[in-house]
Amino acid sequence: MAEHRRPDTLFWVDPASVGSDRLKLSPDESHHLLRVHRAKEGTPFQAIDGEGSFFECVLESVERRAAIGRIVGRREGVGELSRTIVVLVGLPDSGDVGEVVAHGVPLGVSVFDFVVCERSGRAALKSPRLSRLGRIARAGLKQSRRTRLPEIRSSGSLGEAVKHLPSGLRFAADPAGEEPALALVKTSEDPVTLAIGPPGGYTEGERRLLQEEHFSIISLGPSRLTTETAALALISLARNSLR
Amino acid sequence: MAEHRRPDTLFWVDPASVGSDRLKLSPDESHHLLRVHRAKEGTPFQAIDGEGSFFECVLESVERRAAIGRIVGRREGVGELSRTIVVLVGLPDSGDVGEVVAHGVPLGVSVFDFVVCERSGRAALKSPRLSRLGRIARAGLKQSRRTRLPEIRSSGSLGEAVKHLPSGLRFAADPAGEEPALALVKTSEDPVTLAIGPPGGYTEGERRLLQEEHFSIISLGPSRLTTETAALALISLARNSLR
Repeated sequence: MAEHRRPDTLFWVDPASVGSDRLKLSPDESHHLLRVHRAKEGTPFQAIDGEGSFFECVLESVERRAAIGRIVGRREGVGELSRTIVVLVGLPDSGDVGEVVAHGVPLGVSVFDFVVCERSGRAALKSPRLSRLGRIARAGLKQSRRTRLPEIRSSGSLGEAVKHLPSGLRFAADPAGEEPALALVKTSEDPVTLAIGPPGGYTEGERRLLQEEHFSIISLGPSRLTTETAALALISLARNSLR
Repeated sequence: MAEHRRPDTLFWVDPASVGSDRLKLSPDESHHLLRVHRAKEGTPFQAIDGEGSFFECVLESVERRAAIGRIVGRREGVGELSRTIVVLVGLPDSGDVGEVVAHGVPLGVSVFDFVVCERSGRAALKSPRLSRLGRIARAGLKQSRRTRLPEIRSSGSLGEAVKHLPSGLRFAADPAGEEPALALVKTSEDPVTLAIGPPGGYTEGERRLLQEEHFSIISLGPSRLTTETAALALISLARNSLR
């Protein structure tokens, strides 16, 4: 009964397509389950809704090419950290913010804000770019077996970005930072917000704003890190000092 | 005198081309200094030799298209961590080990060993691939203003890889790991070796070998990380708990 083996992949289900004991996959996801994984009636599979729910299902039927699964188990918050991690990433002129999403989602980030800083030299990300990042996030969620899809936005300034933050711990990485990053280890139950400057770093005014907003300005070490590398390093520290 | 402004770039100099008070750049690096940055006699520039030396220079002359710099300052170990970080990365079938080098070099890694593990399903990296990774490492060194070029190798098995390790702290990331990664914080002056399994993880035999070799098997959290993301997370933790 090899065809009844459960695919190792998670399938994506729209929350609106989840009933009390059944769910319906989209045409794309159904194709993947039925054609690529050759699922038959009775094949178990797992699905996530991007809002924190994880479903154990059994393929029950196929209606107009859509796979219908009977829900045999449901868990909340699978693969999620117990705290929220928000990252404010200073936008680089060009370059690979996709990489920050691709690694940051498996590492547990809840909100990415790609912020236009004074030294960014470019405008905020627009909707097509944000959609592309959203697709990277969705793939990362499935691959890493998380269940809650992060929010991705792009604020026009640091002043705008700090308006939307949860309370809790706040750290900004800056080459001028004094405190070593080890300070991150002293944590509490609160959400954590991490800020990483654009290439060239924060301006004096931005640094002042961060301090007024209760960010601790920390240093990530003796060598110069790109915005992307610094973001991944800081996220990794937050993830593993916050469990 | 705008042309006498020091370029923000570090230039690479072969250790064999460094004398007691002068050094000579290669044709490529000279071109970069003279044409791209339009340096003139008297322009200051900075160079690294990949063996830990950092040179403050002033362009003195150009001989057969090679830039000759007068050494006006010399420092050792600029941008380097105080400890050695060795990483053993289980080789994925395909995929982007270049990314591990591109982020790992700025984060301070001294030795990368891309190890053929039992679940790698492929052979060790050969010389052209290692050379390509070496070029990524060199670029990362210059960009991050480190001075000591990491070694990059590819061992044919985990058993071979562990033969070449420094003593000191040893951690292996494994989904089956019990101890949280926070254990990394308890460090000493010693070098640290980090091991990350290939996609699919270590086999039972490999896990036993790691334990015999005094690796602590740690977990990196509730979601499933790719080899590349896990490597970057573990390197970040080692970097910032080891200063």
